[in-house]
Amino acid sequence: MTSYNQLAGQRVQRIEALSDGVFAIAMTILVFDLKLPVTAALHTDGELLAALRELTPKFVSYFLSFMTLGIFWVGHGAQLQFAARYDRHLVWMSLLFLGFVSLVPFSTSILSQDTSLRTGVVGYWLNILALGLVLLAHWKYMVRHRCLGGEAEPLPDVDRAITQRILVAQGLYAVSVALCVVSTTLSISLMLLIQLNYASGGFGAPPLARARS
Amino acid sequence: MTSYNQLAGQRVQRIEALSDGVFAIAMTILVFDLKLPVTAALHTDGELLAALRELTPKFVSYFLSFMTLGIFWVGHGAQLQFAARYDRHLVWMSLLFLGFVSLVPFSTSILSQDTSLRTGVVGYWLNILALGLVLLAHWKYMVRHRCLGGEAEPLPDVDRAITQRILVAQGLYAVSVALCVVSTTLSISLMLLIQLNYASGGFGAPPLARARS
Amino acid sequence: MTSYNQLAGQRVQRIEALSDGVFAIAMTILVFDLKLPVTAALHTDGELLAALRELTPKFVSYFLSFMTLGIFWVGHGAQLQFAARYDRHLVWMSLLFLGFVSLVPFSTSILSQDTSLRTGVVGYWLNILALGLVLLAHWKYMVRHRCLGGEAEPLPDVDRAITQRILVAQGLYAVSVALCVVSTTLSISLMLLIQLNYASGGFGAPPLARARS
Amino acid sequence: MTSYNQLAGQRVQRIEALSDGVFAIAMTILVFDLKLPVTAALHTDGELLAALRELTPKFVSYFLSFMTLGIFWVGHGAQLQFAARYDRHLVWMSLLFLGFVSLVPFSTSILSQDTSLRTGVVGYWLNILALGLVLLAHWKYMVRHRCLGGEAEPLPDVDRAITQRILVAQGLYAVSVALCVVSTTLSISLMLLIQLNYASGGFGAPPLARARS
Repeated sequence: MTSYNQLAGQRVQRIEALSDGVFAIAMTILVFDLKLPVTAALHTDGELLAALRELTPKFVSYFLSFMTLGIFWVGHGAQLQFAARYDRHLVWMSLLFLGFVSLVPFSTSILSQDTSLRTGVVGYWLNILALGLVLLAHWKYMVRHRCLGGEAEPLPDVDRAITQRILVAQGLYAVSVALCVVSTTLSISLMLLIQLNYASGGFGAPPLARARS
Repeated sequence: MTSYNQLAGQRVQRIEALSDGVFAIAMTILVFDLKLPVTAALHTDGELLAALRELTPKFVSYFLSFMTLGIFWVGHGAQLQFAARYDRHLVWMSLLFLGFVSLVPFSTSILSQDTSLRTGVVGYWLNILALGLVLLAHWKYMVRHRCLGGEAEPLPDVDRAITQRILVAQGLYAVSVALCVVSTTLSISLMLLIQLNYASGGFGAPPLARARS
Repeated sequence: MTSYNQLAGQRVQRIEALSDGVFAIAMTILVFDLKLPVTAALHTDGELLAALRELTPKFVSYFLSFMTLGIFWVGHGAQLQFAARYDRHLVWMSLLFLGFVSLVPFSTSILSQDTSLRTGVVGYWLNILALGLVLLAHWKYMVRHRCLGGEAEPLPDVDRAITQRILVAQGLYAVSVALCVVSTTLSISLMLLIQLNYASGGFGAPPLARARS
Repeated sequence: MTSYNQLAGQRVQRIEALSDGVFAIAMTILVFDLKLPVTAALHTDGELLAALRELTPKFVSYFLSFMTLGIFWVGHGAQLQFAARYDRHLVWMSLLFLGFVSLVPFSTSILSQDTSLRTGVVGYWLNILALGLVLLAHWKYMVRHRCLGGEAEPLPDVDRAITQRILVAQGLYAVSVALCVVSTTLSISLMLLIQLNYASGGFGAPPLARARS
């Protein structure tokens, strides 16, 4: 007997398309956080420049969150390109992941509304932690249920590379959030450096990979 | 003579892409309902935490609606993967379906603005009911007009599985909304449980499906 | 010598994807027009119901505009499925078309903010007129520059069907907007009927098409 | 040993899809800048027309930015259609590019809020400059790292055409922004003319290209 759940696994292309949509929107609505004050008079260049300068923490967190979203978009995509089979449980793990993706503009606004508050830093970190955990679960499920295929790389190597990446990154995020006991500026700066490192492909890339990639 | 309506049936990939877009946006703008009060002073961790705590009903309905959207995205996609032919009537049923999808953030805001009001619960349920009815009509049209193809499963089994799923789910939603005579909290809690069950693939999956999916 | 403009014609899939995105967003942000008054007290079912009832003109124009967007999405897509070649001029006609598509939520809000004003009706109609004219130019360019291909239908029949459809529809819209001299309610009602007719495939479909589609 | 960075290069289709999403949203949310004043009484046709007339600078910048986005969407797409290989560095250059794309609605609002201020014009130009520089870097990386393929055109010709296009366009933008020393209206008008020229394919197209495209 055919059950609905057997039918509910989607082609991985649908999840990719939905995911591209959610990431694209989350990235784009980050910009809503950048808003000139509606009430203030902005009729001279001086006033407008001052208003823009006051947006500095918002610009920083826009930049931070754009990198965060980029990193997790790349991370999710790197897993999906190995997916040969994609069942309903993977669909729902991806949906849960996307649910946390679309929370990013919210946690960014929590962070940016007053960057001196620890609550904002911790909230932002919880969002990143959730993204990492769901991504790890998604990958481990794919490995355990033999959903992988289609690539030339030996599987254990791929598994180690992806798992290590998530664990090391989450370890670094945890350190950076712990530093908010000292100063939230320190926390945010370290997070920025971590994201910049991953975005630029800095320390993580061994020579061979650099030559190839 | 060629009529415009013969030309207006689209390749099913276009509907899938439009549908991924509408779902992605509806999922992402749910987050607009999560807003810190602009007027309040939020300059200490205590004030920010208190403001976040007051958002609890909004978080609950964010979570509820994300699952609702996920369930119907999976449901629509499960039908589309059987579509071998897709005519203009199916296109318009899908558009009607997407029209109700993009209402979900609105009915979510009706629900979350005061979760003790029955009007909000009934409005949310009407939205879910409309989604279910259009989806059922879409499927029955596909079956009746021989638009199906491409899958190994015997058609009557697929038909039964999909039809039963919609009817059972809608029955459960009807029960949960009826409970708002007693208490809206009870209604919303039951809806959450129903969505969680479908999202997690809990009771609905027979052993075989579990092993396979 | 290779010129940039020779390189700037895109595969038609890119335009389809961009177009699905713009339509999906335009359809979804129509819902932003549906907003409960933030200032009013909505703490009883009676107050909430009254607030919802006051949104009636907004619901009507949401419904109207969703159909408008659906009709033009189908119309644009019907042309694209014949595109065998797609050059930079077609790309820019499609971009112009999408520019008017993304104005629809704006002209909808002009219309819905006070449905008794002729300015709103005329503004809405101008948007629809622009959409129709660009779509017609897009089609005529494709026919004249032999960009068509890939379908079994004889080209003159297809050309006649698509051209007639746009001209008849625009004629009907022009009649409906002219009626706002008598009453804007009459105009809007007639527009609704026209859109409903096209969405349902009512009068336009000859028996053969009905049987096939 | 497999490194994560070797796995993180995505199929170019994913970047195209993400990019279509970001562009579609940026194009569509430009419309949020077009807003009737909420406080004003708009109960007669005269009042509504006056309110629309006051939006004129917003309409102009909507039109300007839609063309800007179209030009860069075409430009990015023209490069991607040559991509035979796409590594993690290209992914991140594209993400940086998309980060500046999603800033366009913000810089548009800076520009349109008071078109007589130089700060707005310079800010808008900085955004366009950033888009051009990232696009140039993206292209030069593709050329230098032999990521190109799949097209019949001789590579040096393509390289020259794409590079020249970016440099000439950026030169013209620089001239137009320099003119804001004289008048911001002059700057904005020249920018509009430049975009119109590129959108219409005016001066840039040699006869051959015109015949073919």
